[in-house]
Amino acid sequence: MAVVLAGHQYGKAENRVVRFQRDTPRHEIVDLNVTSTLRGDFADAYLTGDQSKVLPTDSQKNTIYAFAKEGPAGQGMAKGIVAVESYALDLARHFIEETGPVTGARIDVDSYRWERATVSGREHDHTWVRAGGEVRTAAVTVAGDGPDRETHVVAGLKDLTLLKSTGSEFKDFLVDGYTTLEPTQDRVMATSLVAQWRYDATCLADGFDFDAAYDAVRAVLVGQFATVHSLALQQTLWHMGKAAVESVPGVIEVRLAAPNKHHFLYDLQRFGVENAGEVFHADDRPYGLIQAVVADDTAPAAPLAWER
Amino acid sequence: MAVVLAGHQYGKAENRVVRFQRDTPRHEIVDLNVTSTLRGDFADAYLTGDQSKVLPTDSQKNTIYAFAKEGPAGQGMAKGIVAVESYALDLARHFIEETGPVTGARIDVDSYRWERATVSGREHDHTWVRAGGEVRTAAVTVAGDGPDRETHVVAGLKDLTLLKSTGSEFKDFLVDGYTTLEPTQDRVMATSLVAQWRYDATCLADGFDFDAAYDAVRAVLVGQFATVHSLALQQTLWHMGKAAVESVPGVIEVRLAAPNKHHFLYDLQRFGVENAGEVFHADDRPYGLIQAVVADDTAPAAPLAWER
Amino acid sequence: MAVVLAGHQYGKAENRVVRFQRDTPRHEIVDLNVTSTLRGDFADAYLTGDQSKVLPTDSQKNTIYAFAKEGPAGQGMAKGIVAVESYALDLARHFIEETGPVTGARIDVDSYRWERATVSGREHDHTWVRAGGEVRTAAVTVAGDGPDRETHVVAGLKDLTLLKSTGSEFKDFLVDGYTTLEPTQDRVMATSLVAQWRYDATCLADGFDFDAAYDAVRAVLVGQFATVHSLALQQTLWHMGKAAVESVPGVIEVRLAAPNKHHFLYDLQRFGVENAGEVFHADDRPYGLIQAVVADDTAPAAPLAWER
Amino acid sequence: MAVVLAGHQYGKAENRVVRFQRDTPRHEIVDLNVTSTLRGDFADAYLTGDQSKVLPTDSQKNTIYAFAKEGPAGQGMAKGIVAVESYALDLARHFIEETGPVTGARIDVDSYRWERATVSGREHDHTWVRAGGEVRTAAVTVAGDGPDRETHVVAGLKDLTLLKSTGSEFKDFLVDGYTTLEPTQDRVMATSLVAQWRYDATCLADGFDFDAAYDAVRAVLVGQFATVHSLALQQTLWHMGKAAVESVPGVIEVRLAAPNKHHFLYDLQRFGVENAGEVFHADDRPYGLIQAVVADDTAPAAPLAWER
Repeated sequence: MAVVLAGHQYGKAENRVVRFQRDTPRHEIVDLNVTSTLRGDFADAYLTGDQSKVLPTDSQKNTIYAFAKEGPAGQGMAKGIVAVESYALDLARHFIEETGPVTGARIDVDSYRWERATVSGREHDHTWVRAGGEVRTAAVTVAGDGPDRETHVVAGLKDLTLLKSTGSEFKDFLVDGYTTLEPTQDRVMATSLVAQWRYDATCLADGFDFDAAYDAVRAVLVGQFATVHSLALQQTLWHMGKAAVESVPGVIEVRLAAPNKHHFLYDLQRFGVENAGEVFHADDRPYGLIQAVVADDTAPAAPLAWER
Repeated sequence: MAVVLAGHQYGKAENRVVRFQRDTPRHEIVDLNVTSTLRGDFADAYLTGDQSKVLPTDSQKNTIYAFAKEGPAGQGMAKGIVAVESYALDLARHFIEETGPVTGARIDVDSYRWERATVSGREHDHTWVRAGGEVRTAAVTVAGDGPDRETHVVAGLKDLTLLKSTGSEFKDFLVDGYTTLEPTQDRVMATSLVAQWRYDATCLADGFDFDAAYDAVRAVLVGQFATVHSLALQQTLWHMGKAAVESVPGVIEVRLAAPNKHHFLYDLQRFGVENAGEVFHADDRPYGLIQAVVADDTAPAAPLAWER
Repeated sequence: MAVVLAGHQYGKAENRVVRFQRDTPRHEIVDLNVTSTLRGDFADAYLTGDQSKVLPTDSQKNTIYAFAKEGPAGQGMAKGIVAVESYALDLARHFIEETGPVTGARIDVDSYRWERATVSGREHDHTWVRAGGEVRTAAVTVAGDGPDRETHVVAGLKDLTLLKSTGSEFKDFLVDGYTTLEPTQDRVMATSLVAQWRYDATCLADGFDFDAAYDAVRAVLVGQFATVHSLALQQTLWHMGKAAVESVPGVIEVRLAAPNKHHFLYDLQRFGVENAGEVFHADDRPYGLIQAVVADDTAPAAPLAWER
Repeated sequence: MAVVLAGHQYGKAENRVVRFQRDTPRHEIVDLNVTSTLRGDFADAYLTGDQSKVLPTDSQKNTIYAFAKEGPAGQGMAKGIVAVESYALDLARHFIEETGPVTGARIDVDSYRWERATVSGREHDHTWVRAGGEVRTAAVTVAGDGPDRETHVVAGLKDLTLLKSTGSEFKDFLVDGYTTLEPTQDRVMATSLVAQWRYDATCLADGFDFDAAYDAVRAVLVGQFATVHSLALQQTLWHMGKAAVESVPGVIEVRLAAPNKHHFLYDLQRFGVENAGEVFHADDRPYGLIQAVVADDTAPAAPLAWER
């Protein structure tokens, strides 16, 4: 047998970029956590310690910050605050096109939300309050060259915590010798959703509005969670994913991972207090974890888009 | 010498209570993290292991959940979702009045914010999205009996992250042999604020609107952060505290702790890119930590209100 | 087009199982965080809400705790504290063999280390101190039936933080227009290692000592990190993986992910203090992230072993 | 009424200092998280924005890193790796003596443990593995000048997780209308201890061995936890504190905070499996929180030592 280097990649993780637009008295803010991952001809760095084909992760960091101001040829954020997907595309293409040994690049971005401070009922020009709640994500992958080039844009969100106080059942499930769960016709359903969705090639054209598409998918996910009468979290996820693919142009695949954050009805009858679905203990662990992939069946699969 | 038990207290920490109001199709949610701390005649539990005066922390937990439904004599949350301060007052008084050995009780509450899900432009009746951002806090202390009883209500917030992109200087500071900082006339100022404020005795009367007072203080804190032209975070804190005491009836003392979350201008000139206060690195550690106590000088000090 | 359910799985995450062996006065402890993931014929649960093929995650939880005492036919932990890999194999096989709709199961285990308390120089029989440091991991996957059955055991560790104060260089790297890093012949190298290694089929036979194999791999990883004069973290990872495959029987593939935890020499010359590689600032973010897969090239690839 | 600045302090938090001793081939490592807090004549910085008496937190950071190499007059760490308490004393005295407006200083230090890597059975000269487990802490306070100067050293530890599988009861407790807990004669007792202890003035003399005292106190705490047959966590804490004061010279006051990390016996009887104190669920929240202060009654109280 021989021992071989069967895979490798490297990059700079968690660059905390904050970008302001200050051209007018009304400033804008973009607050990002950016990670670069490069793939290519780096085996010698591992096998012999020869670094001559390795672009330092420090250089990747510099590039990430520089592109936050100004992308290639005066594009990118130089023209104003563009969508994070476009910024990530610029970065990925730069690394693959300008660095000889690089044959693939992935850019991951977390985007934190800020809301303008309200002062005397009016939005302030240059002060914000961090919004908390969900984090917007983007993962852009570019690989290969010429006609073989693959380009994938996966948008998403994480930490979107949703809860409904009724409209959720769980019953008629499989029972085995370890089953003690009672069926229920009315429970609290809560999750902290991670959703990612892949755009088709038409979205790579100039002018596609990634921000509007994000808002549309988020609205669909929240709307389905609220309005589907749920027979299980599985069923709710299916309807969330299906509605996103059907109703938001460009979305061809949705991946959902949803912890079932259990809320247990607290037994107050022991103290003579009625508890008709009113007081719950929100438990930490363990939790159910339900996952689903929903796709347009005419869209070609793209495993590379999901490879971390 | 003799070794003595010089102090002691105990309780149940981090009870994750979720309370719904379901009397009408439009439900309400209150999501709390509640901690009880009891003080009193418990020395024997330590010195000899005699537990006969110790109310189990498990019983405290049961009480916390039961009072989320129904407080003493049909008051409390039984009448609907009341302010967390009132709920904490009911709990503290219960422990001190109903449990013989208990001579003092402190109830700490963290309250998490939820916003109604929006579906087709309308607020949903029984689905919410967790809001993130700041957490509302309350700390109620009751001690002693009869005319000597002390009762204190301290409200607050934490994790209120604020940022302004201009309107902040730091210059003309003390310089010693270890000083290398350059003065600046225009910097990013950001903090993740912890604020606590003490109410006077008039707020203990029935009908005081703790929720409105909270909103008023929060608005003042955000407003001052935004509008004061800052010569230092110290100065900003002073104006935040001062405005809260002056403008919100019942508030007599404000304690503020503010990390100075440093944003460093990224040097892009090395790559021929101008950076006029537009691209920053948000650093994690170390950070400045600035603290202030602002008070109405006619209000008596109340160290017990702040004792954890 | 049609929208289809292209993938799905579900399970119970983060069951915090603590198992004692109390047959003699000298007790033993095993402290685990266990996650089950089931794959199979569950599409109806998503598409129509029909739960009749869904074993509740609550039942999975019960099974996980029950098997911590007693596996199938008096095996498993009933015979004493066995390796976590064997416990996970028992669980995975149980779900696939005893639950009709289940065609695949994955069991993930984190194992926390405890050391016996030392009292008057001797190990105590029933008291432990949690050791901290690295967490041992195991991921067992079983899929299919009869001759087509695949069984994979991946062991590992995470949070193994290693640091060397010399014996590490980084120079002669690729330079582009964004490169400002200075080459160095002597730097601090530190990482918080995540390592996972796959065992071959011979390790599935009764009597394979997973605990000894774990200790052997850990020792090799630490030893290579210490003794390889490093030209880059990439080169160090290669030698760590290579030595594990070459020297530990049964190990056929190693996957390594290593953050480069940067330590920056603090500039003390400004204050007239010499700093010859003695005082550093340990930075949080960003960090380099270097990854490698090292394998025996005669071993068949097993993508299923790594699928989460 | 007038609104006044009733209190204030400021400093630089969480400086991540790593210090190596490299004088011989066998290197040494000290890994610290250092926070400075200054008190003094800073009211103008708040009230009018006048910073002329404010030493920037950036200068404090520089001082913290410089003193890690070389303290005043060739003392401190310049002579080798000294105890963190001595390093903190040097820093506190420096700020109060060299900076006019400073009248008090507090230095908090967390110290992370590393163990030498073992290679072929021998300790390696310049490679370490981070030990995890408890963090050693120190809090030094210096205030005032001349004969009125107060100097306090409080050492401690946090995250020391201890567990015993037998030798712990809880019964004969107070029962009220909300009590449902069953008494137990044999339970699992576990905690994640925070302990702090104050040294008397004799320990400030040159040559006091803070490292040996730390080891002695830690050994006493672990030993008492293990060997006291516990009637309650309260009783265990008392014996831990008492033994520390009685047996470690210089220790005059111990403060203990101990979460009661609940382990619930898992009901396996439902599946026909016996569970004689062998399989538990380790719960996250809520948890009991027990606190105690144990002191030598001839030692003067020192509230300033504990003020954060």
